[in-house]
Parts: sequence; structure tokens; C-alpha cells
Amino acid sequence: MDNVKIEEMDWMTYRDLVKTGEKKIIIPVGAIEQHGPHMSLNPDVLIPEYIAKEVAKRTSSVLVAPAISYGYKSQVKSGGGNFFPGTTCVSGSALENYVYDVMHAFVEHGCREIVLLNGHFENSAFIAEAADRLAKHFGGKGIDIKVFMLSYWDFVGEEIIAKIFPEGFTGWAVEHGGILETSIMLCIHPKLVNMDKAVHIEPAVFPPYDVFPPEPSWVPSSGTLSSPVGSTAEKGGIILEECVTKISNIFE
Amino acid sequence: MDNVKIEEMDWMTYRDLVKTGEKKIIIPVGAIEQHGPHMSLNPDVLIPEYIAKEVAKRTSSVLVAPAISYGYKSQVKSGGGNFFPGTTCVSGSALENYVYDVMHAFVEHGCREIVLLNGHFENSAFIAEAADRLAKHFGGKGIDIKVFMLSYWDFVGEEIIAKIFPEGFTGWAVEHGGILETSIMLCIHPKLVNMDKAVHIEPAVFPPYDVFPPEPSWVPSSGTLSSPVGSTAEKGGIILEECVTKISNIFE
Amino acid sequence: MDNVKIEEMDWMTYRDLVKTGEKKIIIPVGAIEQHGPHMSLNPDVLIPEYIAKEVAKRTSSVLVAPAISYGYKSQVKSGGGNFFPGTTCVSGSALENYVYDVMHAFVEHGCREIVLLNGHFENSAFIAEAADRLAKHFGGKGIDIKVFMLSYWDFVGEEIIAKIFPEGFTGWAVEHGGILETSIMLCIHPKLVNMDKAVHIEPAVFPPYDVFPPEPSWVPSSGTLSSPVGSTAEKGGIILEECVTKISNIFE
Amino acid sequence: MDNVKIEEMDWMTYRDLVKTGEKKIIIPVGAIEQHGPHMSLNPDVLIPEYIAKEVAKRTSSVLVAPAISYGYKSQVKSGGGNFFPGTTCVSGSALENYVYDVMHAFVEHGCREIVLLNGHFENSAFIAEAADRLAKHFGGKGIDIKVFMLSYWDFVGEEIIAKIFPEGFTGWAVEHGGILETSIMLCIHPKLVNMDKAVHIEPAVFPPYDVFPPEPSWVPSSGTLSSPVGSTAEKGGIILEECVTKISNIFE
Amino acid sequence: MDNVKIEEMDWMTYRDLVKTGEKKIIIPVGAIEQHGPHMSLNPDVLIPEYIAKEVAKRTSSVLVAPAISYGYKSQVKSGGGNFFPGTTCVSGSALENYVYDVMHAFVEHGCREIVLLNGHFENSAFIAEAADRLAKHFGGKGIDIKVFMLSYWDFVGEEIIAKIFPEGFTGWAVEHGGILETSIMLCIHPKLVNMDKAVHIEPAVFPPYDVFPPEPSWVPSSGTLSSPVGSTAEKGGIILEECVTKISNIFE
Amino acid sequence: MDNVKIEEMDWMTYRDLVKTGEKKIIIPVGAIEQHGPHMSLNPDVLIPEYIAKEVAKRTSSVLVAPAISYGYKSQVKSGGGNFFPGTTCVSGSALENYVYDVMHAFVEHGCREIVLLNGHFENSAFIAEAADRLAKHFGGKGIDIKVFMLSYWDFVGEEIIAKIFPEGFTGWAVEHGGILETSIMLCIHPKLVNMDKAVHIEPAVFPPYDVFPPEPSWVPSSGTLSSPVGSTAEKGGIILEECVTKISNIFE
Repeated sequence: MDNVKIEEMDWMTYRDLVKTGEKKIIIPVGAIEQHGPHMSLNPDVLIPEYIAKEVAKRTSSVLVAPAISYGYKSQVKSGGGNFFPGTTCVSGSALENYVYDVMHAFVEHGCREIVLLNGHFENSAFIAEAADRLAKHFGGKGIDIKVFMLSYWDFVGEEIIAKIFPEGFTGWAVEHGGILETSIMLCIHPKLVNMDKAVHIEPAVFPPYDVFPPEPSWVPSSGTLSSPVGSTAEKGGIILEECVTKISNIFE
Repeated sequence: MDNVKIEEMDWMTYRDLVKTGEKKIIIPVGAIEQHGPHMSLNPDVLIPEYIAKEVAKRTSSVLVAPAISYGYKSQVKSGGGNFFPGTTCVSGSALENYVYDVMHAFVEHGCREIVLLNGHFENSAFIAEAADRLAKHFGGKGIDIKVFMLSYWDFVGEEIIAKIFPEGFTGWAVEHGGILETSIMLCIHPKLVNMDKAVHIEPAVFPPYDVFPPEPSWVPSSGTLSSPVGSTAEKGGIILEECVTKISNIFE
Repeated sequence: MDNVKIEEMDWMTYRDLVKTGEKKIIIPVGAIEQHGPHMSLNPDVLIPEYIAKEVAKRTSSVLVAPAISYGYKSQVKSGGGNFFPGTTCVSGSALENYVYDVMHAFVEHGCREIVLLNGHFENSAFIAEAADRLAKHFGGKGIDIKVFMLSYWDFVGEEIIAKIFPEGFTGWAVEHGGILETSIMLCIHPKLVNMDKAVHIEPAVFPPYDVFPPEPSWVPSSGTLSSPVGSTAEKGGIILEECVTKISNIFE
Repeated sequence: MDNVKIEEMDWMTYRDLVKTGEKKIIIPVGAIEQHGPHMSLNPDVLIPEYIAKEVAKRTSSVLVAPAISYGYKSQVKSGGGNFFPGTTCVSGSALENYVYDVMHAFVEHGCREIVLLNGHFENSAFIAEAADRLAKHFGGKGIDIKVFMLSYWDFVGEEIIAKIFPEGFTGWAVEHGGILETSIMLCIHPKLVNMDKAVHIEPAVFPPYDVFPPEPSWVPSSGTLSSPVGSTAEKGGIILEECVTKISNIFE
Repeated sequence: MDNVKIEEMDWMTYRDLVKTGEKKIIIPVGAIEQHGPHMSLNPDVLIPEYIAKEVAKRTSSVLVAPAISYGYKSQVKSGGGNFFPGTTCVSGSALENYVYDVMHAFVEHGCREIVLLNGHFENSAFIAEAADRLAKHFGGKGIDIKVFMLSYWDFVGEEIIAKIFPEGFTGWAVEHGGILETSIMLCIHPKLVNMDKAVHIEPAVFPPYDVFPPEPSWVPSSGTLSSPVGSTAEKGGIILEECVTKISNIFE
Repeated sequence: MDNVKIEEMDWMTYRDLVKTGEKKIIIPVGAIEQHGPHMSLNPDVLIPEYIAKEVAKRTSSVLVAPAISYGYKSQVKSGGGNFFPGTTCVSGSALENYVYDVMHAFVEHGCREIVLLNGHFENSAFIAEAADRLAKHFGGKGIDIKVFMLSYWDFVGEEIIAKIFPEGFTGWAVEHGGILETSIMLCIHPKLVNMDKAVHIEPAVFPPYDVFPPEPSWVPSSGTLSSPVGSTAEKGGIILEECVTKISNIFE
């Protein structure tokens, strides 16, 4: 199947695809967030959007909805914090209610399975809450729906990690703007990465708690939490293939 | 200036552009909404996004933020109504709060002037409310901001209308999916229009009131409120040129 | 039928009138808003309240609920703006939720058809949202209700406009505090109009966009958007007769 | 001073009265609620509205704002409960936010003292919360405001009660629709009372707790909680005089 | 039955107790609020918690849920006001929504009767609203629940009052931190009372209205509204026995 | 210092302790959630409460506030899911707003540093959002506060884990109701644990995504995610000592 992007269909085509309720709708949910001086602000949007389209191409059961670009506030220990110019985030309740309403609309069209494909760690709890409320709401009316929530990095297995980080993986927690995201972006949007500006740093080390307002001095000044140096499009391709394959398997 | 899309900048570049507060940020706000069987679901997103980029190219004072794709519920007399499969809309409060938070983030970056460039009539009151609350909020802290809210069609002058509709204009109210939107889409995204599927109809006529739940029988079955037949890319180009020129003039 | 005002009935009389669900309840929704130095702050309340009562007298199917006096924030281009002393308005969410709850209560009484009779343009989107949510809410429980939303000026036909404005009509957009509202008030509440204080102005001209915070210099200093000079009770009577007749026709 | 009703002033007159911040604004807050088969649904609106106007006439420091007609849900033990047809009430949050916004608007006009004159017991906690939030909000900006909240019955002293109830007073708790309210209405709006329909009952007796959903069998079937028999306009006049005098004394 | 505290059960034991829906769940709702220099901040939590446990021991039909410690804002005339250090209160909407959700969870477990046992006067309206909304919500789905709301002091009869206050009772209104609460605390938590620090005052006298922000000068500087002098554990025991007996009678 | 529990102080003692703003207030935030058939529903409340008191005893800078017992909805992969009888949870917005208000009250008392000591993983994002909003709110008024948010298990170092799990640690993710929580409870509340009922299971294995409504079949039927067998009070003591020591070090 060629055309998988809902927004590029006319409504009659879309209607015919969804009316039986068998199609799953993937909604990429991302963020506009700094990812270091070597990369654009939108990897958290573009990566799940890309994966969604690839998954849709490989299975016959999913369609891709327009991405939700602005996500929940970046946190110091996962995204560098919400004080960087360019990190453009919304509150938890605004995200939760917006995502809830978007999913609600798809259910009204006849869809019964929705996939929130998350590209920004900090979104997780708020979009899960939206999903939980929605499932409860429709379940209470006798309409059984199912919302999948998944973050693409959770599909990267240990074997792949060993391949990408032969000298040891410092953990997802500090991968923000590091080799994984940078390699994927080099693979799918090389024009949005400029490795000449990549800053080498040691992986960030944080105390075992958080403070509010966030403390900028905890964060490397480049904004990434580990070094992007060593990223390649090839590594990106390996990671993506792993994610796309495993996610496609769920929906087949 | 070449790169005007915020999301494609790295954060340091963005920071340097906005730190004086002189750059205006244009946020395109659209909707995913049926526009007849001959057109994709996203003209309300793509048109303001396109105009924003053109305006940014012609002036040195504006940057373009990622679009907000999901807008307020389509209404029968302006968008055909919120019951068409494919029309994927959010509640007024969800839109208002989401837009509020996005603008808030830009003000935190140092921006002092924001432009809500609207592509979907129904958004107007809710994003105006967001703008009003935001201006009040920051004004109350001694931070004077200015939010412009504009809908591109309000810039199409009578002369242009006369040119596009030599046989008489039936009014903006029923232009949904008609010659104006279709011509613009033919100009900027011809692949998302299929004139073979365009359905000729007489302009919709409505009673002078609304009902809820909306009454589908009031709406032409194709979903447009007037006929798209006669649309051309050339007409679209004329309209866009008018809009881009006039909007650029405001921000110069 | 003589007594049409719900608030002046005892509850048993009211109960007997509504228990079959056949009576429509008209709720006038207005605003407290400046209308120039020649007129009181309450035309947006009194006019729909008057029309509602007249409609109720002519048909046997409607009852009139107490008006909701405080409406949504006055906007520069339709009501002069929300910065005039005397213009006393509420936020969109406060209005929406208040109107929602009032309608909800009437449905609980057994009413199945509610009419929001609007006297203040700016209310439109927020009370429509309340109506849409309510219809959805009860529909989801198997209780089908119908909410009509209408603004009285939408019933004034071209013929009447030609009669009232023999030298040309500058449009509803700038009628705030002008000949139409003033004439109606002269007809129904002459004590609340003082034509000696009426200020002659040219119709206001606005740029094709809005700004927030609103710009007072855009608005004529008297507060009206066109001239009230030339208003007469007779003209008011003609307009009202048109509105009352046409609205009555809907509900018969 | 003659004209005390804000809504009947033109905006310039109002502006001149409030600009120094010395005028207090009284906002009557009531309810649409059954008061037995012998009385209209609006005593809780009309009584505080009347008292407000009288107080304004006797002092030179207050103005009267339009009443808020729809109040918080009637409770079994103070208003008979929220299940009577005609009892038309809103949720606590809707009332709180609506009242908050109305008061906010008056403060924006320059007013610094606002009086919530309550006519419906059940409103108390929610409008107090609105007042508390508002005072905090403006205080936090260096704008000191003062909101008075008063319920007219709290001004009826023991001497008056002894006069009105020579055979003993059964307490405010069960006065709903009884001699006090009925007598006041006979005094100020005799056409809205029909003593022929007054039902004699023993004062209601309730268990020392509440249940939800409310239990209709706890409430006398007429809807009042004590007997209105014996009400006279003269008694109403005595009560009103007491209230108006004492309330005027506060504001002088 | 020995163990009545839900939180100290394992889930299977709890499940077996509630699955038939016959057990009532008592939720003590209190406040952290100053009660004079002679007493801890938590009587409003400990007293309903104690009564709940005693009631549970005497009947076989109730279980006790964990208390909700933080209640609605203390008011001047019932709790001294919300400006004392140590008085730690939440807004009405926060309390309402939190209590609503807690009750909702118990209904999901299979419980059909819930008892809100209130220890802080100011909570009343907000938790009643939560109860009303919940009953409506589940009733609308065909699940009939019943929420009891009771404040323990409403069960203290006149005979007991005469015994405790042989020289005359000045009313519940000013009992805050006075003989009733102090005596109960001396009975159940003597270590949290230090009668050496008890300050003798005349009962507070207030004007018949409230002001916001609250006026500290209205309140006795010790924080209580009447004198705790004369409190004894024995008096406390008498009061508690009355409350526990009468409340147990409801649930048997 | 002996008395560290705020709720057991009288207000004057508390006032004197907090007036300089130097004391930190620790608020334990937990949940009522099943932890297997061998343990009570409240470990997530009791453990942070215990740690808070121990930390307060060892440092002179902190006081302990009453715990917030009801937390955010249990999730399948961290707490077994929100469908177990006994798991009694609130929505994200209810928790966020309740915690926000409680912290707000402490800041009003003069406190400037607050510690959210979390005992329930699922609370994290929502209480962090509350903390972020609060810091922003007061910062915007020129009042700089600092909120620490910490989860006790994040202080358990690798050395301790090696000691407790000599045969290998399966990760925090599945520790729900396992050896760590059970051992701590055996140490501090042995009466709330019954090892005879402990069910041995293999650590739960989950797919790399979540579904809503949650899927009960994913969760071991006992409710824990790993085996509690092998828990001892001694192990609990070692873990607690580690947590208390490290957390105390932050606040000294």
C-alpha cells in the first residue's frame, strides 16, 4: 500500500479505509527540543514520524496521523531541561487533553485501535493518562478500544546496542542528543545534522534526585547528555531497521 | 535569509536569532478537516504554513514555528461539520490551552511578538482567547508582548475576488473546499488535489441559525460548501501573492 | 398563553408545562458592554430577552429562561474591545461551562429542545461549544436533545436593511452601538437611550487582523463602531418585527 | 442619588463614578429554585437585588451590578434538593469561575471593593472561594482589593425574629419557602406569590447527615421546608427594613 | 471483626470483603489547621479517623479508608482563617477532584456505599459536590451508588451539650479549638494536647458577613474561637460515645 | 531534635521553626496499591514516611508533613496495574493539583524549600509537574523557592544491590512487591507482612510497550512483579540505612 498518511488522503478514501475499525491509527507524538548544537530541534518529531511511515508500508493494518509536534516539558536528566532557547514545550495538562481529543476524534470515525508512537521520553506519563481516560470513557459506553503506547527506543535490543556501542553503553538515560538520536537523524535527515558542530562530552552524571526550578549547571553546556561524536548514518540505519521490524511485528 | 523554519535550526542558531526579542514567531494553526473528495485533509495546515514561509523569506523579521495541525471542531456552515470521517478536531479548551502553552514557551525564549496565522475559520475565537490571556498574563508581570492573529483569507481584496470570480462571489462563508482553497492547493501541492474527483454543486444555503448536534442533511454530500470546479493553479498563485504581499507588509 | 417567563412560575406549573419535553426553552445570552455614551450597558441582554418574550407570546411552544447577563470578552472589531470601563466580561471557559450547566439542568427537568438566543456576537463560539458538548453528552446516554443557537441580527433580511439604511449599509461588523441596536433600544427601552449624547462618527475601519492586547487607538473614542445618529424607535420596530416573525416561524 | 444600576448607565457615566475606586459594586448572586407551589422560582434573585438597590439608595458609596441568576445546586436540607423541576442550578466550579471572572472585570475598571450579596445559601462556599482567589490574585500584583460576602438573612436580629415568629422560630435551616422568604416576596413582588396555593406543613426534620444522590422522600412534597402560612407583606417589610438598614451601615 | 483499616489489609483479603458491594467504606476527611497553642494541627484528621475505627468495630458493615489529611481553606469564622502558619489547606477544586477520584476508585472495586466522615467544617460544600457528581456519574451508567456525608459534631445532641456546657453553649460556630475538640483530643490523643498552654478567651464575636482577604484582627490571637479551658478527657469520652453510637446506628 | 512531625506540633511552635525559611518540609507522597497477598496496601506511604522521619532525626534542617496517601494510577509494568481491588488511585490532574496546593500552603507559611519524597513510581511525572509550576509561579513573583523531588530507591547503590541480590538483580522495573519493598516492610512494619502468604514467581516479563485498557493477563496473578521470597528484615534495614544516610547528606 502506498499512501499511508491520513492527512494526504481525501475523506472518502479515508472513510473507506477506517469504517470497519480494523485499521490502526499511529499518532507520532514528539517535541520541539534542543538536541545539541549539531542538530535541529525536531528529532523527537521526525523519528517517530519516520518509523510510523515505515511500519505502515510494511503492514497493511496501520495508517499514519499527523504528528503532534509540541510535547511535554523537557526534564534535566532526560532532555537537558526546559530552559534552553528552542526547547518549546507545553504543560502536562495541555498535552494530555490535546492528545485525548485527537484520539477521541479518531474513535468517532470508527477506529478502534490507536497507537501513540512516542519520540520524547517526557511525554510518557501524560499521554498514557490520556490513553487510560479514553479507554475508560469509551469502555463505559460499551465501545471497546485499545490504545498502544510505545517509545521507539524500547525496541532496541541488547544485541544492537552492543553493535552500536562496542565500548559500552552508558544507558538510555543520557542518550539525549547522543549517538543514537544523531545516527538516526544522519540516516533519515542528514541535512538537519552538522557533525562539524558536534561537541564531545563525557556522559552527564546527575544526583539521584531532581530540583525545581531546574538547575542549568547540572547540564553540559552543549545541551546533549552524552557525546554525539562517532554517529553515522549506518548506525542509524541499523537502529531504525530494528525498531521498524519489531514494531511492525506487533501490528501484523 | 534562507532558513526560516525554527524546527530545522539548532538551538544556538535559534537562540542568537531571538535573544533580542525582535524576531516575530509565526505559528501556523490549522485543522485536519475534509475538503471534498478531490482534496486532502490538510489544506488548513499547508496553506498557512506555506504563507508563513513565504512571508519569512520576504522580510527579515519573522521565523516560522511548527504548525499546530489539529484545530477546533469543524462547524456545519463554515467547514461542513464535525461528523465527516477524516475531520479530526479537538475541543475549544484543549486547543486554547495547547496554543497558550506553545506561545508561552516562545515568550520564555525572549520572543515578544507572536503571529498566529490561522488556516481554519473555526479556530478563531479559541486562539484569540489564548492570545488575550497570554498578553494579560505577561503584561501583569511587566513583560509587554504582542500577539497578532490573522486569517489569510481576510487579506484577499475585492479586486482579486473579482478576478477569480468573474461571475460573482458567493461569499467566504461557503468557500469551504471551493475555488479559493482548491486553487491555492493546486498551486502549492498539486499532488494533493485530484480535479477528476471534484464535485460540482450549487453554493450551500443554510438557515440563519445553527443546531447541535449538527444536521448532516444541511451539508452537500461531497463535503464542500461550493463548487471547486474551475479551480486552477494560476488562480491560486494570484491569491497567494496577494496574501503574502499584504501580510509581509505588516511585518516589515 | 400569558406567562412565558419560567422564573415567574411556581415549580408545579413549570413542571406541568415541561414534562412532556415538547416545550422549547429559550435562554437569552447577552453581555454587559459599552454601547456608546448615548446608551446603557445592557442592550445585548435586553434585546434577546425582549425577542424571546415576543416569540413565546406568538407561539405555544416556547418558554423563556432567565437571561445570562455577563458574556464573553468584547472584541475590538465587533464590540469595541475589552478595555472600556463598563464592559464587564468573562473568559471563554467560564461562559462555556456556565451555559453548559444551565442547559444541563433544563434537560434534567425533561426539556429536550433548548434555544440559545444570542445578543452578543463574541459569545457565539463559546456557547456553540457548550451546545455541542451537551448534545454529545446526552446523546451518548441515549437522550437525544437539540440545541438551537441563533443571533437575532442574522434574521434581518436584505429588504429590511435597505429600508433602514437607504444610503447603504456598512455591514454588521461595525453595527456595534450604531443605528440597528440604538433603534431597537429606542423602541423597547427608550429611557435607556439619550440621543442627545449620540456621537456621529464615520464607520470604523480596521486592519484585516487582530492584536492582543487590543489596541484602543483602533476604536472610535465614543465606543460605537458606526454612527447612531438617525436611529428611531420606528426603525427599531421594523427590525424587531422581522426578527420576531422569522424566529417564531422556526418554532411553530 | 437616583440611578444605581450599573447596567442602565452609559459607560462614560459609569467610568466617572468608579474611576477613583471608591464606589463599592454590589453583585446580587441568587438561584432559580423551587420555593413551593405558592411562589415563583426567583426569590433568591429578586430579594438580594431589591436589598442591593435599597442599600444603594441610602448610601452614596455603592452601585448595583446585574444579578447572577443561576446559582449552585440546591441541597435537600436547605433548599429542598436539586431534583425538583424548576430548580435550575450549576456546578460549584462553573459558579466559582463565572463569579470570579465577573469580579475580575470590575477590578479592571478600577473598582477596589466588591460586595457579593447572596440570596441562596448553597452558593456560599463557592463564591467565597472565588472571592478568596481573587483577593489573592490581585494582592499578589500589589493591587489590594476587598470583597465582602454577605447573606441577607444573617442580618435579621433576634428581636425581629421574635416579632415575626411569636410562637417560636424553628431556625434558618428550614426557612426555605417559609414565612421569611414568602413575606419578603409579598412585600416586594406580590404578583409572584399566590397564598391560595400555600401548603401548610410541619417544619421538615432531617437526619444529621446528607446522602447523594439526594433522597426525595426526605423533603415535604410541596418543596418548602416549613410552612408559608401566616406570611404577610407587613412582616416582609419589617425584615427588609432590618436588613437594608444594617447592610447600609456597613457601607457608609 | 478486628481489622478494619483497608490500608493494613492485603489485597485479596480486601477483595473478598468488598466484592459483594455490601461493605461501606468510610473515608475520614480532615484538615491540617491550627487549633490554638495548646493543641496539635491534626484534630480534624484524628477525630474522624478515630470515630471511623470505632464505628467499624461496632458494626460489621464498614471498613475504614486512609484519611485525606489536607482539607479546604480554613475560614475566619469557623477555623480562624487561612493565614495562620500551620494551617495548610488546598483550594476547593483540588479537594473536590481528589476526593472524587478516591471515591471513584472504591466504586471500581465493587463498593456501592461510601461514607465521607468529615472533621473540618469548611470541607462540607466541596466534598458534597464531589459526592453529587459521583452519584450522578455512576447513576448515568446504571450503577447506583450512595454516598453518605456526615460531620461528627452534628450527632452531638442537646442533652450532651447541656452536660458538657452546664453554663451555656455558645454554639458550634465558635467551637474551633474550644472545649469540644480539646476534650476529644484529651481523650484520644492526650500527648497532643498541652493544657498548660491553653489560653482563656471570651467566645469570638464576628460581624454578620465575611471579607476577603480575611481580616486577622477579627480572630483571637491564640487562634481558637472559644476557650479550651475546662476541657477534660472525660468530657471528650462522653462526646465520642454519643457520636460513635449514633453513627453506628445508621450503618447497622 | 525530637519532634519532627508538623501535624503533631501546635501552630506557634511550628511558626517559630519555619519563619526564617530555613527548614525544609518533606512531604511523603505515596499510594494505596496492592503489593501481593503477603503485604498491606500501604508500603508506598509508610516507607517514605519512615525515611522522612529518620532523615529529620539525623539533620536539624527538615520537618515532616503529613503524607499524601492516594497517588497516581498504578501502571501494569511498575505496579501491576490499576484494576486490582485495593489499588485505590487518583487521576494525574487530581494528584498534580492537590500536591501543588499543599506545597503552595507551605510556601505561604514562609517555607522556601520543599522535598517531595516519593514512594510510588507512577507519581513521578505528575508531582514533578506540580513542582515545576509552583517554582515558576513563585519565581514570577520574586519569591525563589526550591522543590526537591526524590524517590527513595534511586539512592540504593550498586554495592547494596549486590549484597541484597547475590544471585543477580532483575531491575527496579519489576521490584514491585518483591524483595526490596518486602524487606523494608519487614524491618519497619513486620505486622503488615505475612511471609506465609508470599507467592514465589519468576520476574515478570513484559512487551516493550503499554496498552490501555491495561491487560490483566500480563501481570502475575499474585500482583507482585517479582518474588518476595527471601525477604528479611535485615535486608530491609540495610536498604533503609543506605537511603536515610544518603538523603540526609543532601539536606545537611
